[in-house]
Amino acid sequence: MPLRLEYPTEPYSTVKRLKDRANYSLKTIHKIVNSCPMLHVSFQSPNSPFPAVLPMIGQMGSFKRPSADVGEVLDLYLHGYVSSRIMNLARAPSSSPSEATSSTPSPDAGLPITVAASHLDGLVLALTPNTHSYNYRSAVLFGHAQPVTDPAEKLYAMELITNSVVPQRWDNSRIPPNAAEMQSTTILRVKITTGSAKIRSGGPHDEKVDMDDEELKGRVWTGVVPVHTSMGEPVEAEYNKVGKVPEYLEEWRKEMNIEGEAFAKTQASKEMGAE
Amino acid sequence: MPLRLEYPTEPYSTVKRLKDRANYSLKTIHKIVNSCPMLHVSFQSPNSPFPAVLPMIGQMGSFKRPSADVGEVLDLYLHGYVSSRIMNLARAPSSSPSEATSSTPSPDAGLPITVAASHLDGLVLALTPNTHSYNYRSAVLFGHAQPVTDPAEKLYAMELITNSVVPQRWDNSRIPPNAAEMQSTTILRVKITTGSAKIRSGGPHDEKVDMDDEELKGRVWTGVVPVHTSMGEPVEAEYNKVGKVPEYLEEWRKEMNIEGEAFAKTQASKEMGAE
Repeated sequence: MPLRLEYPTEPYSTVKRLKDRANYSLKTIHKIVNSCPMLHVSFQSPNSPFPAVLPMIGQMGSFKRPSADVGEVLDLYLHGYVSSRIMNLARAPSSSPSEATSSTPSPDAGLPITVAASHLDGLVLALTPNTHSYNYRSAVLFGHAQPVTDPAEKLYAMELITNSVVPQRWDNSRIPPNAAEMQSTTILRVKITTGSAKIRSGGPHDEKVDMDDEELKGRVWTGVVPVHTSMGEPVEAEYNKVGKVPEYLEEWRKEMNIEGEAFAKTQASKEMGAE
Repeated sequence: MPLRLEYPTEPYSTVKRLKDRANYSLKTIHKIVNSCPMLHVSFQSPNSPFPAVLPMIGQMGSFKRPSADVGEVLDLYLHGYVSSRIMNLARAPSSSPSEATSSTPSPDAGLPITVAASHLDGLVLALTPNTHSYNYRSAVLFGHAQPVTDPAEKLYAMELITNSVVPQRWDNSRIPPNAAEMQSTTILRVKITTGSAKIRSGGPHDEKVDMDDEELKGRVWTGVVPVHTSMGEPVEAEYNKVGKVPEYLEEWRKEMNIEGEAFAKTQASKEMGAE
């Protein structure tokens, strides 16, 4: 059985409230990140009173060992509507404040960023507003981002990310990217420092005083409304010339819809600990 | 016709890439935020090299004028798994660095935070990996957060937020909250400084060289897979004593599913500007 790796619990990464929901397993965290179609990437921008938050697409992977399991030590590759701001900051020779005085690049060189991946799995409806909750899986990763410069690594990450949107899509599109496309594409590699996850599943939990109130229980419906992401019927482009939607796309879409619905339903009754 | 208000474009809030997707209208931004079941809240935590990002539940509102339209100047109320960290930071007499030397509270007193709300509306599949995209609606708000101390305002925000999860849920649960519940509930009010939105809709856009390649167009399926959030059949709690799922919940659930699916489909063919 493979080693079950965990991220170290740093002061900024440790779940302090509702600790029974905390999870530090690389596998658990990486799976939440890899199945999240939109990540929220935050970093401190100089001369701004507020941190920046950008929605981006990303995926965990290992360029040096592409066959690595999801539970192993991996890098996060980010691609998306990368503003020049985040790219310029990440490109700076030493954008980590703690490294500002160092003359040689260190393992934590790069822009310090925080990446959040969150899935909503259900609305948990309890007897009182205060005991309402969500079923969810949320992960956060902390690390240092630098632009990928090696064309082979960039290509690896582009394929990884494209196939995370639709499996097998890379091979089913016009590849390889030409020189102009390679140049215009921006990929950040995030060396992970640590991370954590928080997961809630199961039904509502109410206080004893309300649970003992039979009139209340007969009046307020309690339970979970499962929530999942659905993909509708594909809408072809005006210039599409492929007769029918290809199988790799349709089968995956239908399977994801069925699996997503079933998963949210399972989470609704899978108890993980009290409120 | 009401005034169409826009947020000011500050250097940190201005959309710099793909400007035709930018939107600064209060109404557009507030609608994206209010329909987002999970917001991502970021702030700089002292003694941490990385910004903090928390998934939270929130809603725009006006305590002083509850009937205010969604396009008017509003506050953001946040509730959720508020770590003691964010609460303590927001509770500090002057947590805004720029106000550290001031002796009187100012309009921008409170913790500087950034709130992101993002909806994925579709997978946009084009001829090349580089021209792939998402249809999405994403908004970001910048402001200063302080805990709500007035019990009446707290109650207003609790009702607002509960009803954002399921409309009419507040009145259909055990209210009002008792003293202990009022005490344990943490609500942050965010005074908004500015904000922006970025929206993409429509089909894929490819480069002329690929569009002219008939073999390619006959081989690669192009179009949009619409994406929306679905709510499955409610799963009752073990202690539920209400015979059937109440109408306010079932009708809303079914309506949201139909509307969500239709909206994502509409966005798939609603052109908003080139890639």
